[in-house]
Amino acid sequence: MENVLYEMQYAMDTFYFLVCGALVMWMAAGFAMLESGLVRAKNTTEILTKNVALFAIACTMYLICGYDFMYGGGWFLSGVTTVAGMDDAAVAGVVKGVADFNAGVEDAGLQYSGASDFFFQVVFVATAMSIVSGAVAERMKLWAFLVFAVFMTGVIYPLEGGWTWGGNSVFGLYELSYSDYAGSGIVHLAGAAAALAGVLVLGPRKGKYGPNGEVNAIPGANLPLAALGMFILWMGWFGFNGGSTLQLSGVGVANEVANVFVNTNAAACGGLIAALIVARIIFGKADLTMAINGALAGLVAITAEPADPTALMSTIIGAVGGVLVVFAILFLDKLKIDDPVGAISVHGVVGIWGIFAVLISDSDATFVGQLVGMLTIFVWVFVASLVVWIAIKAIMGVRVSEEEEFDGVDLSECGMEAYPEFSGTSK
Amino acid sequence: MENVLYEMQYAMDTFYFLVCGALVMWMAAGFAMLESGLVRAKNTTEILTKNVALFAIACTMYLICGYDFMYGGGWFLSGVTTVAGMDDAAVAGVVKGVADFNAGVEDAGLQYSGASDFFFQVVFVATAMSIVSGAVAERMKLWAFLVFAVFMTGVIYPLEGGWTWGGNSVFGLYELSYSDYAGSGIVHLAGAAAALAGVLVLGPRKGKYGPNGEVNAIPGANLPLAALGMFILWMGWFGFNGGSTLQLSGVGVANEVANVFVNTNAAACGGLIAALIVARIIFGKADLTMAINGALAGLVAITAEPADPTALMSTIIGAVGGVLVVFAILFLDKLKIDDPVGAISVHGVVGIWGIFAVLISDSDATFVGQLVGMLTIFVWVFVASLVVWIAIKAIMGVRVSEEEEFDGVDLSECGMEAYPEFSGTSK
Amino acid sequence: MENVLYEMQYAMDTFYFLVCGALVMWMAAGFAMLESGLVRAKNTTEILTKNVALFAIACTMYLICGYDFMYGGGWFLSGVTTVAGMDDAAVAGVVKGVADFNAGVEDAGLQYSGASDFFFQVVFVATAMSIVSGAVAERMKLWAFLVFAVFMTGVIYPLEGGWTWGGNSVFGLYELSYSDYAGSGIVHLAGAAAALAGVLVLGPRKGKYGPNGEVNAIPGANLPLAALGMFILWMGWFGFNGGSTLQLSGVGVANEVANVFVNTNAAACGGLIAALIVARIIFGKADLTMAINGALAGLVAITAEPADPTALMSTIIGAVGGVLVVFAILFLDKLKIDDPVGAISVHGVVGIWGIFAVLISDSDATFVGQLVGMLTIFVWVFVASLVVWIAIKAIMGVRVSEEEEFDGVDLSECGMEAYPEFSGTSK
Repeated sequence: MENVLYEMQYAMDTFYFLVCGALVMWMAAGFAMLESGLVRAKNTTEILTKNVALFAIACTMYLICGYDFMYGGGWFLSGVTTVAGMDDAAVAGVVKGVADFNAGVEDAGLQYSGASDFFFQVVFVATAMSIVSGAVAERMKLWAFLVFAVFMTGVIYPLEGGWTWGGNSVFGLYELSYSDYAGSGIVHLAGAAAALAGVLVLGPRKGKYGPNGEVNAIPGANLPLAALGMFILWMGWFGFNGGSTLQLSGVGVANEVANVFVNTNAAACGGLIAALIVARIIFGKADLTMAINGALAGLVAITAEPADPTALMSTIIGAVGGVLVVFAILFLDKLKIDDPVGAISVHGVVGIWGIFAVLISDSDATFVGQLVGMLTIFVWVFVASLVVWIAIKAIMGVRVSEEEEFDGVDLSECGMEAYPEFSGTSK
Repeated sequence: MENVLYEMQYAMDTFYFLVCGALVMWMAAGFAMLESGLVRAKNTTEILTKNVALFAIACTMYLICGYDFMYGGGWFLSGVTTVAGMDDAAVAGVVKGVADFNAGVEDAGLQYSGASDFFFQVVFVATAMSIVSGAVAERMKLWAFLVFAVFMTGVIYPLEGGWTWGGNSVFGLYELSYSDYAGSGIVHLAGAAAALAGVLVLGPRKGKYGPNGEVNAIPGANLPLAALGMFILWMGWFGFNGGSTLQLSGVGVANEVANVFVNTNAAACGGLIAALIVARIIFGKADLTMAINGALAGLVAITAEPADPTALMSTIIGAVGGVLVVFAILFLDKLKIDDPVGAISVHGVVGIWGIFAVLISDSDATFVGQLVGMLTIFVWVFVASLVVWIAIKAIMGVRVSEEEEFDGVDLSECGMEAYPEFSGTSK
Repeated sequence: MENVLYEMQYAMDTFYFLVCGALVMWMAAGFAMLESGLVRAKNTTEILTKNVALFAIACTMYLICGYDFMYGGGWFLSGVTTVAGMDDAAVAGVVKGVADFNAGVEDAGLQYSGASDFFFQVVFVATAMSIVSGAVAERMKLWAFLVFAVFMTGVIYPLEGGWTWGGNSVFGLYELSYSDYAGSGIVHLAGAAAALAGVLVLGPRKGKYGPNGEVNAIPGANLPLAALGMFILWMGWFGFNGGSTLQLSGVGVANEVANVFVNTNAAACGGLIAALIVARIIFGKADLTMAINGALAGLVAITAEPADPTALMSTIIGAVGGVLVVFAILFLDKLKIDDPVGAISVHGVVGIWGIFAVLISDSDATFVGQLVGMLTIFVWVFVASLVVWIAIKAIMGVRVSEEEEFDGVDLSECGMEAYPEFSGTSK
C-alpha cells in the first residue's frame, strides 16, 4: 500500500512537471509571435526562423552538455575543462542521453522522473535564448545569431544556472546566497545581458536615430500577433513560475503552487494597467505595445518570488515593473541602444527589480545576497556574451550589409517574404 | 497514511483547478483573436487594447472586491451597503489578499486550495467581460469601455454570480432555484446583456444600415485570426466546463469530468455543422464566420448542463444552438442592433437556449426555476449596465466622433495602426 | 482505504487522458494555422473552413460509428456488414452515446473513464483527417472534401485503427504483428495515403508545373501563421505521444511518459536543425518552410516509438526525418504530385521512416511485422480513399473550375475573402 502511495506521488509530481514544461515550451511560440508582430514585414521570416531554430538549438545543446554543466556535478568547473577530460559517468550520460535519468533519480529517492526534470529545465534554456532574438532583430545575420545560440545555451547560461539553482560555486571562488524562485535574474536578466552585449556589438538599425538626436518610431507590422504573443507568454508563465516549486503533492506545496498562479496573474495585470496609464499620461494615447510590455514586465517582476507575497502585493510589484518598463524603453532610446521589441527593458531592467522585490516578502533573502547574485549573473553573462559576439563578428560578421538591411533580411537571409501578397510599403 | 492520502487528494484537486483555470485564462486570447479578426484593419489595435486591458481590470477588480461580493458572505447585500461598512474580516481579506484563502479553505475542510478557487473564478469574470468588447467594437471610446469594465467585473457580475453560484438571496428578496453548471446564463447571458445595453446606448456603426433598410456587410480584416480565436475558445472551454465540477478525485466525479469534455466537444461540433449547413442553404456558400459562431453557439448551449446528456444529445443541443445563432444574427440586423462579431446572438440568444436545455437531462431543474433565474440575470445585468453606460455617456461620452470613426479608432484612441504596411483600403 | 487509492488512481489517469486529449484537439488549430499560412491569400478562407468543418465532422462520425468500428468488437468485420445488422448492444451504444462508456469501463476493471478514452481517440481521428486538407488545397471543391471526410473518419481510418490498436484481424484474413506506439503509420501514414489518393484524382494546381518541366514556387501568404501552426502542433504532440501510454499512475509508466516528452521534443529539434542545414546547403538560404516541415518530420518520425530510445537517439531519428522530408518534397515535385504544404512528405514518407525506426530500440518489433503493417495500412487507406475520391468525382466533381481556381476558391466556395483589405496582388 505504501508503495502504491509512493507510486502515485511520483506519477503526480512527474505529470505536474511535464504539464508545466509543456507550458514553458509554449512560451517559444509566444516569443516568436511577439517578435514577428513587432518587426517590419520585410524582417518577419527571418525572426521566425531565428525563433524556431534557437529553440531546437537550445534543446539540443542543453542535452549534449548544458544540463550536465548546470546540475551534473560541475566537472567542467572542477578543472576538467575539456570534453576529452569528461569523466566516464558524464560521458556515459551524454552518450546514453536521458534514459539514464530515471535510474539516477530513483536512486536518489526523489519523487519524480529525472526525464521530467530535464524537460522542465530544457525549456527554460530556450526561454533565456528567446529573449535575445528580439533585441537584435532586423539587422543581424541569421547564422551569426545561431552560432551565438550554441554558446549561450550550451555554456554561458548553464554555468550561471549551476551557480544559482545548481548550487555550484562561482568558478570555485565563492558561493552565492541568492534567492530567485523561477529566474527573474537567472533566466530573464541573463537573457537581457546577452542581448545587450549583442546590441552593443551590432549597433542600431539604420534610420532609428536621426542626426539631431531624433528617435524615430519604427512600428511593428502585425500587432495582433504581438498581442497573441503576450497571451501565450502569460499562459506559459503559469508553468514557468508554477513548475518552479518542483513538486505538488502535499497540502503545503499545493497551496504554494496555487498562490504562484494567482500572484503571477495578478502581477501581469498590475504591470499591464500601470504601463497603459503611464503611457497614456506621457503619450496621450492608449499604447498597445506599452501595455503588452507592461504585462510582460509584471510577469518578470514577480518571477523571483511568486509564492510569498499576497495577491495585492503581487499586483503592486507587477505595477512597479510596468512603470519601470515604460521609462526604461525611453531611456535606452536616449542612449541609442536600439532594442526593437523592448526585450532589454522588460527582461533586464525589470528583472533587476524582480530580484530586489524578493526582499519585500522573503525574510531569508538579504540585500547583499541579491546584489551579489545579480552582479554575478549580469557580469558573467554580459562579458562572456560580449566575447562570443566579438569573436563571431571577427570570424563571420554579425551584421548584414546596408543594402540587405534596406531590402529586409527576409530576402537576404531566408530567400522568402513573410507576406508576399500584402504590400510593398515597407522600406 | 490517511494524512498522505488527504494531502494527495488536496494536491490533485488543486492542480486540476489550476489547469482548468489556465485554460479559461487562455480564452482571453481567444476572444482577442476572434474579435481582431472580425473587425476592419483600422479598428484592430483598439480592440486588442480593449481585450488585454479588460482582462487585467477584471482580475484586479475581482481581487479587490468582486470575489468578496460573490462568495464572501454577502456583506454588501445584507444591508452593509457601503465599503465603509465592510466588516473587519472582509477588510482584512481585501487588504491581505489571497494569501488568506488557504487558511479559510483548510478550516472548512474543503479539498483544494482557496487560491486555486480564486484563480478559477477570476478568469470567469474576465470571460464575461470579454463578451462585451466585440459587440461594441469599431465605434466606442476605449476609456469609456474600460470604465464600464470596472463596474461590470467589480460589482454587476459578482452580485448575480453571488445569487446563483454563491447561494445568496437576490437583494434579500427571494432565492433562486436555478441550475446552471458552468454558466450559460451566469456568464454568457450576463455578458450578452451588458453588451446589448452598451450597443443600444451606442448605436450602430456608420454605414452598417442603409436608409432603405439595407444591411451592409462589413467584412472582418483577418479571418485566420478569427478561426484561431475559435479554436482557442474551444480548447479553453474544456477548462471552463470541466473545471466547473470543482473537483476530480473520485471515480464518480472523474467520470463526470470526462463526460463534460466529451459533451463540450460534441456540442461544439454539432453547432458548427448545423450553422455551416443552414448558412449554405440561406446564403448558398460555406460561410466561415457562421461556422465559427456556430461552434461557439454549441459551446454556449451545452455550458448550462455539460455532464448529464449523452454525447449524441449534446451534439443535438449544440446543433440547435448553431441553427439559432444564424437566425439570431439575421434578426438582430433587422432590428438594427449592430453587433460586429455576433456576440449577443452567440452568448445571449443561445445562452437562453442553454438555460432551458438543462431541462432535457436534469430532472431536478424546473422550467419555472430556469425562467426566474434567466430573467433575474438578464434584467439585473441589463438594467444595471444600462445605468452605468448612460452615466458614462453623460460624464465622458461613449462614442468617438464621426471623423474618428471614419479614420478608424486605432489612430484616435491608440495612436498606432495594427497593420501599418498592409494597405490603406479600409475606409 | 484501498478504495480511496483506487479512486485516486482512476481520477489521475482519467485527468491525464483528458489533458492529453485537449492537447491533441489543439493540434486541429495547428493544422489550420499551418495550412492557412502556406496557401495564397485567395484560398485562405476556404482552407480554414475545411479545417474547422473536418474537425467537427470527424468527431461526429467517430461518435456515430467510428469508435465502434475501431474498438467495439468489430461487428462490421465479422460478417454483420450492414448497419441494419448491428447487434442490440451496439445499437444501444450508438443511440445512447458516450454515457454508456462509464459502466463498460468500470465493469472491465480499467482504471480510467471510458469517456476519457473516447475523447483521446476522437481527436486522433481528426488529426488523421487534418493531414489530407493541406495536400488538396487551392483547387478542391469544399463540399467534395467534406463528403470524403465523412468516409475517412467514419470508416476508412477506424477499420485500420481496429486492425492495429484495436487488435482486430484484417478483414478476417490475417492478424498484424506491428508496433506503432502513437501512430507514425496508423495516423500519419494513413492521412498521407488518403491525401495522395486525393491529389492523384485532383491533379496539380494550374501554373505549378511549367510545360518544360519547371517547378514554380507558389509562396504562402502568411508565414507567421505557418510558424504558429508548427508550434501548436509541436505542443499538441506531447499529448499525442504522451497520452499514448494510456496511463500514468505508477513509477514505471510515469518515467515512460517523461521519456516520451523528452524524446518527442528532441526529435522535433533534430528534424528542424537537419532540414534547416540541408536546405541551406541545397538552396543557399535558411528556408523557414523547410525548417517547419523538418520539425514536423522529426515529430512524425519519433511517433512510432517515442518511449524506448535515448534522447540523443531520438534527436538522430528526428534528424533523419528532417533530411528525408526535404528530399521527399523535391522528389514529389519531380513526379508532379502537387502538395502545397508538403503533407504527403511529412506524414507519409517520414511516417514510413518512423515505422521502421522502431526496430532501432524495440527488440520485440520485427522488420517483417513492420513491413506488413505498413503495407496493410497504406494499401487499404490508399485504395479505399481512391475509390471514394473517384466516386465523389463522378457524382459531384472534386475540382473547381479553372476560372474559380484563378480567382481563388475563397470567393467561389465561401463567398468571402480572408484578408479583404490587404491586397489584390494574388492571381
